[in-house]
Amino acid sequence: MAKKIEFYDTTLRDGTQAEDFTLSVEDKLRVAQKLDELGIDYIEGGWPGSNPKDARFFKEARDLSLKHAKIAAFGSTHHPRKKPEEDPNLEALIEARTPVITIFGKSWDIHVKEALKTTLERNLEIIEASVAYLKPHCEKLFYDAEHFFDGFKADRDYACETLKRAQAAGADVLVLCDTNGGTLPHEIVEIMKEVKKRLGKGVSLGIHAHNDSECAVANSLMAVLEGAIQVQGTINGFGERCGNANLCSIIPNLLLKMGYEAQAKKYLHKLTEVSRYVCEIANIPHPRYLPYVGRSAFAHKGGVHVSAVMRHPRTYEHIEPELVGNERRVLVSDLSGRSNIVYKAQQFGIKLEANDPMVVKIVEEVKKREAEGYQFEAAEASLELLMYRLIGEPKQYFELLGYRVFDMQNPEEGYPLVEATVMVRVPPGVGEVEHTAASGNGPVNALDNAIRKALERFYPQLKEMVLEDYKVRVLPGSPGTGAMVRVLIFSRDSQDRWGTVGVSHDILEASCKALVDSLTYKLFKDRHKRK
Amino acid sequence: MAKKIEFYDTTLRDGTQAEDFTLSVEDKLRVAQKLDELGIDYIEGGWPGSNPKDARFFKEARDLSLKHAKIAAFGSTHHPRKKPEEDPNLEALIEARTPVITIFGKSWDIHVKEALKTTLERNLEIIEASVAYLKPHCEKLFYDAEHFFDGFKADRDYACETLKRAQAAGADVLVLCDTNGGTLPHEIVEIMKEVKKRLGKGVSLGIHAHNDSECAVANSLMAVLEGAIQVQGTINGFGERCGNANLCSIIPNLLLKMGYEAQAKKYLHKLTEVSRYVCEIANIPHPRYLPYVGRSAFAHKGGVHVSAVMRHPRTYEHIEPELVGNERRVLVSDLSGRSNIVYKAQQFGIKLEANDPMVVKIVEEVKKREAEGYQFEAAEASLELLMYRLIGEPKQYFELLGYRVFDMQNPEEGYPLVEATVMVRVPPGVGEVEHTAASGNGPVNALDNAIRKALERFYPQLKEMVLEDYKVRVLPGSPGTGAMVRVLIFSRDSQDRWGTVGVSHDILEASCKALVDSLTYKLFKDRHKRK
Repeated sequence: MAKKIEFYDTTLRDGTQAEDFTLSVEDKLRVAQKLDELGIDYIEGGWPGSNPKDARFFKEARDLSLKHAKIAAFGSTHHPRKKPEEDPNLEALIEARTPVITIFGKSWDIHVKEALKTTLERNLEIIEASVAYLKPHCEKLFYDAEHFFDGFKADRDYACETLKRAQAAGADVLVLCDTNGGTLPHEIVEIMKEVKKRLGKGVSLGIHAHNDSECAVANSLMAVLEGAIQVQGTINGFGERCGNANLCSIIPNLLLKMGYEAQAKKYLHKLTEVSRYVCEIANIPHPRYLPYVGRSAFAHKGGVHVSAVMRHPRTYEHIEPELVGNERRVLVSDLSGRSNIVYKAQQFGIKLEANDPMVVKIVEEVKKREAEGYQFEAAEASLELLMYRLIGEPKQYFELLGYRVFDMQNPEEGYPLVEATVMVRVPPGVGEVEHTAASGNGPVNALDNAIRKALERFYPQLKEMVLEDYKVRVLPGSPGTGAMVRVLIFSRDSQDRWGTVGVSHDILEASCKALVDSLTYKLFKDRHKRK
Repeated sequence: MAKKIEFYDTTLRDGTQAEDFTLSVEDKLRVAQKLDELGIDYIEGGWPGSNPKDARFFKEARDLSLKHAKIAAFGSTHHPRKKPEEDPNLEALIEARTPVITIFGKSWDIHVKEALKTTLERNLEIIEASVAYLKPHCEKLFYDAEHFFDGFKADRDYACETLKRAQAAGADVLVLCDTNGGTLPHEIVEIMKEVKKRLGKGVSLGIHAHNDSECAVANSLMAVLEGAIQVQGTINGFGERCGNANLCSIIPNLLLKMGYEAQAKKYLHKLTEVSRYVCEIANIPHPRYLPYVGRSAFAHKGGVHVSAVMRHPRTYEHIEPELVGNERRVLVSDLSGRSNIVYKAQQFGIKLEANDPMVVKIVEEVKKREAEGYQFEAAEASLELLMYRLIGEPKQYFELLGYRVFDMQNPEEGYPLVEATVMVRVPPGVGEVEHTAASGNGPVNALDNAIRKALERFYPQLKEMVLEDYKVRVLPGSPGTGAMVRVLIFSRDSQDRWGTVGVSHDILEASCKALVDSLTYKLFKDRHKRK
């Protein structure tokens, strides 16, 4: 018989405690919609009693048309010196009018005394009264036992008593929280066994783990094996300090490997999309190495390895990437062989058979470039342009005839001055020469500004293109400031993102090469790739 | 009785399989030195049989003076159609002349047939013969059982037989590898119990986990609880796809929470420094959310929370951050970093008590610089000069009055031309002005050449100084080519090595700042530090 599990997402509440991760109310509404598409069971939207922004979210969330998920509002038990019916925090939870209410209470004696500043007995009353008061106002009430595992280690009788009170007052699930994230997987197992012994086998438990020991995912899995029916976590593991348990790893681990069933199973192929969407909305880069959903998660280097992967993916991949909506990536690296190139050419719409002599020519050219310091892993647009050039279909829309950069620092005479001049011919070989100049806050920036200024007259669509990121790497080899430099440029417009690369002893020349490829690719894709 | 555990670092081999993480031979030597300072037991340097760069590492590593660590060379078992004594891969392992050799063999039947293209029986012979042949050439021989857990699931008898052959031939530790990273913690426990049953309780096992299920740390801990005496992993979890098991989390979990003992225990306060050092050397940002060592790992938001943390850190932190050399970060941050600053000042020969107001002044200045994008972890010479400047003992031997850099690319007219002019005054304020010019193969190189040319007339000892490495990092913030840039310069003479840093929007200005610090430090240390 299939084992059922429920996923409770707190990206919108606990997730936004992460440093550098913030969401507006509009962002939160968009993310909630997306979480629903993934088949998440519960979406915790915020803490209405602590934050007027969160109260607004709950008001607007009523207009969302969710197919699967129920919205949850989060808050604390009532104030020690108030009655439940007088407590503004509980009032805000009721006013949020969500089908689910989650309240947290104290499990750890030191927190009761030091943070809540009340007695152990009063804390038990508070828990019971808060749950009982809220229960009639929602379809489901979840009780988050804050610091439960630390509390259990300090005084297991007391920690378990807090759970019993919440249970007695009608909580539907008792969620054991590892708030400080210090608990290890084997401790989760021991403690949950003891909790079940004390609360009875029929108790409904949940798990809420943090990643301070880098065990949040494993702790969640171990808790499920010990009978937890609800897992709380966040997309990509965003959260305070080192983050919350990462649902993007927990969901496929449970559904693909451990035989559990959940609403999300039908939508698992959307996992990668949702993971990247949340980063896009929050305007932060998607972490490359994320399990299951990262861009590197199914990336393969090395020719022999690659041909084996093509024949028997299972021998080098723990799951099929398509199951979570990710894809296999073959990295063109200095170990690369012919099978990599054929695979890439297909992606670029170039038809090549493995035994075509052109494949050898491309492999040789790529190897030559790599020996010079080029890397195409993050610069596929440069690789695509290179391949088209080799098969005799060069994509060229302008010719950079030359440039001059002038950088002067002389504080006494009122400088700095940074300026670039360029000459471009459009179209190449036969066209008009545009000669112009621009300044910038550094020499690369000045050169970038000047080239764009020269070209935008001919190609106004270049204005849509934004330089998103710029990376410089000094290559090993000749030591010091005379070394070779590799520049990577990431660009985007409203439809695409692409990476290009340039290498030279001279950082300006390397930047210029990457920039020329980036501009060329924009013009090429607009002309040939739009359907 | 304390339980002993050994740490085997493979950052330099498996770690460099990560996308975007590459190290030159010089970088690897620096990282090896740093790993030794952390008390790591074994450092795997590379695969000499696959890669001439790695062979060079082993040659140069013989000159490292390591206090704790033993260097290991990595390679595969011998070729199915060769004898051990004819196999170039085994030959390369012997020629590496390391105290430790680690060889990997196949455990999974499908890999034997498909990748090795041989019979199951021949694979067993290969394992036994390879181990037996290499064993007399090293102090310790470790056998990595590749894909062991997948192999066990497919055919446990065969997988265990491969281990028995390696054991019979004299392998000191049998390392069970979860090469595809798909194994979950409860499976590790079950499989290791069965392995111990079949191989006998006396068998020495190790664990090598990958993070594709986000369980590599937990899997390593579970393996240790099941008796593994060696843990293989990498700094920050760098590695192919989603990475290897992260030693920066495993080490403190085992030593601070699980009662294990290791050489690294004495040096645990260096963990954060080593973690960040590796990122600096590899020229990639240090991931903020990393457990134990990340900048967010002990960051606290919110006033009440912060005062509670100050009174009772244990209630909101799973460990004391100082134990791993990290620090608590709070909104009002004048407490953070003070002990570090006092510690560093002592190292630099500056006497400061913790309650000296100068400490606050230095902390504030360092924080201001860090907010601008400076980082002093790999640039201690710049920090030292900064501290002397603040305590009123500026170390200044020359004044750079200004510079001008001219970079022209115009192939039709016979260019490129890259030229820099500089004006320096020696000694500062009162001395003679030297105005000179030099060319270079790039603008930074031209500037470097011109400054040295101007100074060498006054300070001929600058000729002894070599610029060993030069790194550029574009900082996040304003996008594209207008972003801030951090330049790190590593210099050396016959006696010392030192790092300096400069930050600016303008890469030439940033380079110039780092260069001026580097030249100044050389002159300072020659005058004041030679005993």
